[in-house]
Amino acid sequence: MSEVNKGYFTEENSADVVISRIADSTEPRLAEVISVITKHLHAAVKEIEPTQDEWLTAIKFLTETGHKSDDWRQEYILLSDIFGVSMLVDAINNRKPSGASESTVLGPFHVPDVPELPMGANICLDGKGHPMLIKGRILNTAGEPVANAKIDVWQTNDDGFYDVQQKGIQPDFNLRGVFRTGADGTYHFWGAKPRFYPIPDDGPVGKLLGSLGRHPFRPAHLHYILEADGYETLVTHIFDPDDEYIHSDAVFGVKESLLAKFDLIEDPERIAAEHPGGPFYQVIHDFVLAPDA
Amino acid sequence: MSEVNKGYFTEENSADVVISRIADSTEPRLAEVISVITKHLHAAVKEIEPTQDEWLTAIKFLTETGHKSDDWRQEYILLSDIFGVSMLVDAINNRKPSGASESTVLGPFHVPDVPELPMGANICLDGKGHPMLIKGRILNTAGEPVANAKIDVWQTNDDGFYDVQQKGIQPDFNLRGVFRTGADGTYHFWGAKPRFYPIPDDGPVGKLLGSLGRHPFRPAHLHYILEADGYETLVTHIFDPDDEYIHSDAVFGVKESLLAKFDLIEDPERIAAEHPGGPFYQVIHDFVLAPDA
Repeated sequence: MSEVNKGYFTEENSADVVISRIADSTEPRLAEVISVITKHLHAAVKEIEPTQDEWLTAIKFLTETGHKSDDWRQEYILLSDIFGVSMLVDAINNRKPSGASESTVLGPFHVPDVPELPMGANICLDGKGHPMLIKGRILNTAGEPVANAKIDVWQTNDDGFYDVQQKGIQPDFNLRGVFRTGADGTYHFWGAKPRFYPIPDDGPVGKLLGSLGRHPFRPAHLHYILEADGYETLVTHIFDPDDEYIHSDAVFGVKESLLAKFDLIEDPERIAAEHPGGPFYQVIHDFVLAPDA
Repeated sequence: MSEVNKGYFTEENSADVVISRIADSTEPRLAEVISVITKHLHAAVKEIEPTQDEWLTAIKFLTETGHKSDDWRQEYILLSDIFGVSMLVDAINNRKPSGASESTVLGPFHVPDVPELPMGANICLDGKGHPMLIKGRILNTAGEPVANAKIDVWQTNDDGFYDVQQKGIQPDFNLRGVFRTGADGTYHFWGAKPRFYPIPDDGPVGKLLGSLGRHPFRPAHLHYILEADGYETLVTHIFDPDDEYIHSDAVFGVKESLLAKFDLIEDPERIAAEHPGGPFYQVIHDFVLAPDA
């Protein structure tokens, strides 16, 4: 038992007294985490000097955030998202070597075991929106092509919803696909131009966003998980830099290196050769995988 | 819009970017509180460097703490209690002038509108435990008696439960009373020696306490709310300094100045004069009220 533990709690020594109660037998990582949380929590309370009413408002907010969460809705993850904590944890766990593509948050709409498609396939099964050709290369940090890389991609449809948010409305696996690179490391497939969309904002977190004058939208993007033997798995997005919310993603997922270019192709020769149906969008983006640690 | 808002979120600027999103139109106190929380939250995450699994463990803990809370059980207040936050907020809101009695937490078991009793009454209605005489004076910081002070007192019975925790088992208003001082500022009444008791520990907060090697007990105490015209209301306890948990109150409510002395009276003359039933405990404690701010 430390000296401070024999003393009583005061406004001055508060965090030290709480931390000193952690038993020596406590699992060391838990003891470390709880000590750091206690230190910063007390520092925040001392800086805020909440009234009793403000403290109770916080208690109620945290309780309602729990009550809003169930098997289908995770309001605490949303809270972590809008405070930038999810992105910070992602950044801490995905420090990439120079030259490698950067990560961003996984998000809640990934689906495992999506069927593998032949290169060039169209993942847009509902026919909505602007057709879009997505192509590029999977490279390593030496600039060499990565063969047999698995590309798992998913995106919203033109209404701003993922298939799993509109079961029975969108076709199954709409705007999802798995592709595998050949020896040259290139990929290409067709989708639809993605749309910005709101995170769920009908709960306490949405109310907080509103009180802060913040909107709930994420700028248009495509999600990726890229896997290849000998390389770190990359969870990331590419974003439309012309989206009106590109500088104010509600969950802070945008990074400069993840901005792609969504070009409208109106050249009649290319239309005739690649998409006889008419003009289309094109995104060319290379991904660079970091070697396994 | 500040400069930083035009930049994207990085591990380095994370808190600044999140804070910069708060709209200028935001209610100033809310903007201040959320800014301070964001700053300390990001500092804590950067110091902890949680893995994705640890982050998810935290999300699940916060969600379960919400799910455990309902109209009868407030697990988030317990969480605030065991981290010392409730006591810190109490301390911040109750800085007393020198010489005045100190405050401590209200706790969840206060009942309004308890009947007023004549001085000297016995609030122990279940006849359990050791009889105890509680007496002293209500003074101001000049040492003068405070007349017509309202003393609202409540305590556990000898089984370590408040009446409201055992409705139908304990008599209504067992070990609760309201008394009012006369011109001399003195008070005296009979109760029972209180017992230590556990905070509810069958939820996520109890599990956390266990993981930290901490017990859930509060040392024996009596609760008070003291009110008088011209004085700050005082919410406090007095504690039994000989309780085995006096140095490890699960909610950090003990202060040195709140230690009373629980004396066993075995003197036959006093027993004959004051409590013919046999030996009894006696607590003499003066309270000093601070003038209204």
